[in-house]
Amino acid sequence: MYISNLPKVAVVMGSDSDYPVLESCIKTLKAFGIDVEVLVCSAHRTPEKAAEFAKTAEEKGFGVIIAAAGKAAHLPGVLAAYTVLPVIGVPVKSSTMDGLDSLLSIVQMPSGIPVATVAIDGAKNAALLAIQILSLSSEELRAKMKKFKEDLAKEVEEKNTALQKKIRDEFNPTC
Amino acid sequence: MYISNLPKVAVVMGSDSDYPVLESCIKTLKAFGIDVEVLVCSAHRTPEKAAEFAKTAEEKGFGVIIAAAGKAAHLPGVLAAYTVLPVIGVPVKSSTMDGLDSLLSIVQMPSGIPVATVAIDGAKNAALLAIQILSLSSEELRAKMKKFKEDLAKEVEEKNTALQKKIRDEFNPTC
Amino acid sequence: MYISNLPKVAVVMGSDSDYPVLESCIKTLKAFGIDVEVLVCSAHRTPEKAAEFAKTAEEKGFGVIIAAAGKAAHLPGVLAAYTVLPVIGVPVKSSTMDGLDSLLSIVQMPSGIPVATVAIDGAKNAALLAIQILSLSSEELRAKMKKFKEDLAKEVEEKNTALQKKIRDEFNPTC
Amino acid sequence: MYISNLPKVAVVMGSDSDYPVLESCIKTLKAFGIDVEVLVCSAHRTPEKAAEFAKTAEEKGFGVIIAAAGKAAHLPGVLAAYTVLPVIGVPVKSSTMDGLDSLLSIVQMPSGIPVATVAIDGAKNAALLAIQILSLSSEELRAKMKKFKEDLAKEVEEKNTALQKKIRDEFNPTC
Amino acid sequence: MYISNLPKVAVVMGSDSDYPVLESCIKTLKAFGIDVEVLVCSAHRTPEKAAEFAKTAEEKGFGVIIAAAGKAAHLPGVLAAYTVLPVIGVPVKSSTMDGLDSLLSIVQMPSGIPVATVAIDGAKNAALLAIQILSLSSEELRAKMKKFKEDLAKEVEEKNTALQKKIRDEFNPTC
Amino acid sequence: MYISNLPKVAVVMGSDSDYPVLESCIKTLKAFGIDVEVLVCSAHRTPEKAAEFAKTAEEKGFGVIIAAAGKAAHLPGVLAAYTVLPVIGVPVKSSTMDGLDSLLSIVQMPSGIPVATVAIDGAKNAALLAIQILSLSSEELRAKMKKFKEDLAKEVEEKNTALQKKIRDEFNPTC
Amino acid sequence: MYISNLPKVAVVMGSDSDYPVLESCIKTLKAFGIDVEVLVCSAHRTPEKAAEFAKTAEEKGFGVIIAAAGKAAHLPGVLAAYTVLPVIGVPVKSSTMDGLDSLLSIVQMPSGIPVATVAIDGAKNAALLAIQILSLSSEELRAKMKKFKEDLAKEVEEKNTALQKKIRDEFNPTC
Amino acid sequence: MYISNLPKVAVVMGSDSDYPVLESCIKTLKAFGIDVEVLVCSAHRTPEKAAEFAKTAEEKGFGVIIAAAGKAAHLPGVLAAYTVLPVIGVPVKSSTMDGLDSLLSIVQMPSGIPVATVAIDGAKNAALLAIQILSLSSEELRAKMKKFKEDLAKEVEEKNTALQKKIRDEFNPTC
Repeated sequence: MYISNLPKVAVVMGSDSDYPVLESCIKTLKAFGIDVEVLVCSAHRTPEKAAEFAKTAEEKGFGVIIAAAGKAAHLPGVLAAYTVLPVIGVPVKSSTMDGLDSLLSIVQMPSGIPVATVAIDGAKNAALLAIQILSLSSEELRAKMKKFKEDLAKEVEEKNTALQKKIRDEFNPTC
Repeated sequence: MYISNLPKVAVVMGSDSDYPVLESCIKTLKAFGIDVEVLVCSAHRTPEKAAEFAKTAEEKGFGVIIAAAGKAAHLPGVLAAYTVLPVIGVPVKSSTMDGLDSLLSIVQMPSGIPVATVAIDGAKNAALLAIQILSLSSEELRAKMKKFKEDLAKEVEEKNTALQKKIRDEFNPTC
Repeated sequence: MYISNLPKVAVVMGSDSDYPVLESCIKTLKAFGIDVEVLVCSAHRTPEKAAEFAKTAEEKGFGVIIAAAGKAAHLPGVLAAYTVLPVIGVPVKSSTMDGLDSLLSIVQMPSGIPVATVAIDGAKNAALLAIQILSLSSEELRAKMKKFKEDLAKEVEEKNTALQKKIRDEFNPTC
Repeated sequence: MYISNLPKVAVVMGSDSDYPVLESCIKTLKAFGIDVEVLVCSAHRTPEKAAEFAKTAEEKGFGVIIAAAGKAAHLPGVLAAYTVLPVIGVPVKSSTMDGLDSLLSIVQMPSGIPVATVAIDGAKNAALLAIQILSLSSEELRAKMKKFKEDLAKEVEEKNTALQKKIRDEFNPTC
Repeated sequence: MYISNLPKVAVVMGSDSDYPVLESCIKTLKAFGIDVEVLVCSAHRTPEKAAEFAKTAEEKGFGVIIAAAGKAAHLPGVLAAYTVLPVIGVPVKSSTMDGLDSLLSIVQMPSGIPVATVAIDGAKNAALLAIQILSLSSEELRAKMKKFKEDLAKEVEEKNTALQKKIRDEFNPTC
Repeated sequence: MYISNLPKVAVVMGSDSDYPVLESCIKTLKAFGIDVEVLVCSAHRTPEKAAEFAKTAEEKGFGVIIAAAGKAAHLPGVLAAYTVLPVIGVPVKSSTMDGLDSLLSIVQMPSGIPVATVAIDGAKNAALLAIQILSLSSEELRAKMKKFKEDLAKEVEEKNTALQKKIRDEFNPTC
Repeated sequence: MYISNLPKVAVVMGSDSDYPVLESCIKTLKAFGIDVEVLVCSAHRTPEKAAEFAKTAEEKGFGVIIAAAGKAAHLPGVLAAYTVLPVIGVPVKSSTMDGLDSLLSIVQMPSGIPVATVAIDGAKNAALLAIQILSLSSEELRAKMKKFKEDLAKEVEEKNTALQKKIRDEFNPTC
Repeated sequence: MYISNLPKVAVVMGSDSDYPVLESCIKTLKAFGIDVEVLVCSAHRTPEKAAEFAKTAEEKGFGVIIAAAGKAAHLPGVLAAYTVLPVIGVPVKSSTMDGLDSLLSIVQMPSGIPVATVAIDGAKNAALLAIQILSLSSEELRAKMKKFKEDLAKEVEEKNTALQKKIRDEFNPTC
């Protein structure tokens, strides 16, 4: 089912408690036919494993790394330090500070080591960004991506139709 | 001088006053042998041109779009709405709010349309991220990127040596 | 029931999930006798429809556009880019960042393209602002607006009377 | 020079120290042929004058009130309390808090009394918004507004041309 | 039961929905023997009543005004504009922005018109501050205030004893 | 020169570097005929002196304590802990965080120990608030305070006249 | 069970309502064999007791003080003012402002009096930091700390294994 | 000159541009007789060196690590991941976001790996905290620390005397 000749995408999270946020990310990647590997691996609790993973990710066939973390969210930046693969960072909303700490810890990377940051809890968009990146060398994937955007637009249009009907019914019941 | 067979990178800014921030981005891309096109084009003042540019970017040979904007920074998101190419957003520090408005306007994109956001005024990292993305299909570019990271590390090491000498001189003048 | 010779007001939302916030807006406009059209239309998922709507709004008889959106809330600004009609922006409270992202994305518009921004989730005030704007050319509407403000003051006065009674009862039961 | 049959616009500021921010607002209104009256009048230091001004603004021929204030910026809201004319609020950047205090004090109005808020220090946009509002009953003014937007787009295009030339010169001096 | 010869304290709220926050304030004032009058009165919906109240507060025998409001919380500042009595402001936590808007709208008053601001939802402290102010001319009230602080300290000490017992029981059950 | 029978006001600052902020406070108090004592005294560097000062302030004839501090600004709260006199807190703008740290450290006092907080760097308002408090038992002081407010209003009016002249001159040079 | 020859650790909280946050701190210290004493003691309600405790902590055999407080959280700084023992501050999440007030009130200490601040509600980390500090003079404690970190890493690894199994089961049920 | 039998303190910075902030830290440590080693070493640009340094710090005779970094400031947390020595984090004020990004990236560490955070740019306090920690096993160092605090208090007292003289001279020139 996987699109052939595409590199794999890694989805790395600092804690398994981040999995509910990342579920839509993993599902989206699989739905597009991307080979995904998921890893729980902490920049602070298992730093050597994180380093080892990032250093060997390229040779293991990964093309993009998606990393999610909360609070002082160092994981995406630490992975980016050890690889030249593009790293996408997902700030996870924390119990305090509403995710602002996660966002700033991920996006404000110093010059030299970028992390491609998406919205707080924006895990699905991380998947879509990875797909856009991989689409640069896969016509098949790009076609799927275009289809996805068309479906997105259709969905909005259907909601528009439904809402307009609802409003007509509600406000003009006797007309 | 350009690496052959690579797609172009577009660097789009909402106002020519953003150019000083973007200069390092353009230089970095050119130094890596990427064909860059620069465009001043506003999501609000020239919306149709922005839409037209994004819609035709793929067929014109662009692979990645870098877009910078400040304040209510809609440009990266608006371009992303019209293309499936990866769009990298650079929040420009604004005269008020210290760039927080630019950052949130760019990074907090709704589900379906991601923008790969880098740090406030992080234009050089936007270039490096574009290079990492294009490296997925160019061994030559990836090799340059690896060399860049090695040089970065060497530079830190040289600064370390210089600082340690300075401190020895300053604090132990007679030893 | 509509006041005659008044332009219509459009209420545009980026997602139908914003409808609960906008319900009071629509009801208020209708209660004042304004002809309202409601539209789900996203700056990012259906950008061409949004552009088309804004470009033709004037000729279709709209006088004011109210647009609500959350997170990186580009919709009001994008509509304003394509029309000279006054655009009122309603920042919708987002699940993270408490609506600060929506507010800054809407209010911090660059010079040239204003958006008249109301409070976070301030949809009813968006309706009242539209009514104040349309009142400039309708004595009938202005009279209704004055009546509304008088009723508002009476309501406060009634609550004052009720609270004072309650406090007297609570604190001086035997007097 | 004034467009005939248009109501006047009031530009009210809490302190004459806000004048530099408002200068572009006044100039823009005059350039469009709007009759402007300027007033220094504080919600806190001259509250009765502020109240009196707002209460009589309609009968004195004003159509829109623009009010600018900084810090705990109550002026726009206080004026809005006393009139049904649309009130546009301009948050002035304060010496501390970077204008966030001004913005929140102006935009977060309670239900019933809207203030149409523009960006921090966004005085020119306040003028443009007033013009858009008055354009609803003046074809002449609307035509000027459309011309203004076209010029804005042309200006961006000219800057684009200039920047592209500059970049060509800078990066390819010998081509 | 009231301490004689003391001025009254007014507790003014912008909306009766603020009453739950202010209940502890009213109770504390009454428990100290202060004559309290409660008023619902909005800076925006009943501005003339607010102005009238503040202008006549001194001659009606008030010594201190406590005013609570949320969001763009203008009430304390507006009352302070019309009186030379000390005005204590209570920022009410709003549904969005967590009370930061209320706090900044109340505390950041311009030079000339102070508002004595307490914590967000700090209504009880507003009462205590009023009591401290009135204590300057009442030995009886000051004695009560000192007794209150001693009781506060005793309460902390009792909680300390209880917690230490609980911890001993929990962690050393068999010792 | 001092108004007789009035308690003294203490102006306490955590560091002599806060003096420039407090100068207007001291001058205002003296101009109103208040006996002022100034003290440099840190909650952290000289905690025992701070405690001793607050404990004995009442018996030494002080009626109000004004305390200014920056960053983790504990001084006003620490003084309030040791006295029942009203304590007015002035948050000093810090070199980082723009005074938000100072403001929150002062205003967010726990229940039981209020601090009457004024604006960031709002030292003059601290003086005016102290004067309003002392006016409760001095007709002479209250009369001065009323005069001050009238002068404030006149000053605004004069600035209004000056600005309107300036604008007439600037915009209508030939009329 | 206590490791011999180690100084005690004090866990001080401003209110017993902070106990749920601190429970993990106390348990962790006890689990490592540290002698803990717990104290409820407020910088504002029992300031003399707080001062007395801190002044005598060293002679009573304490080596480290952990202090937790919320809102205008002065307790850690006030204790640090009276002792040369290291003081660890735990900002407690407050009902408003999401703990930002607590954090800034604790961490932004002026030069001369440091407080070692951990994350908002980071009570367990406060215990671990105290243990790291005491480990400098106890090989036994350091060995336990190393064991703790190894267990932490193992725990992450086990969660990784579990999650990968779960994902395999969920996404590939029939493989 | 060094106090004998004390472990060394490492001062690590992510970039040599942080040296001006850290100079007072290094000087303070040396003034107290601590053996200091300074290192430029980036969590992102030289991650392996950072890891190697932290892993071997204990055996090389370090007792405390002070680490300073700005923006997405991962260095203190990354070092803490590889050692059980106490790590003190100094958030460096960044060019945007006023150091809030640095602070949150350092202080909001996840459970298990604490970083002892001091104020933004609070490098001198980092030194003092390290000294307090090392004082637990050195009477000589603790005596110096007590002397330091006494001098600090004396300095405040001298500034108090000087300021009071200045105010007497300024305000009562003829006495």
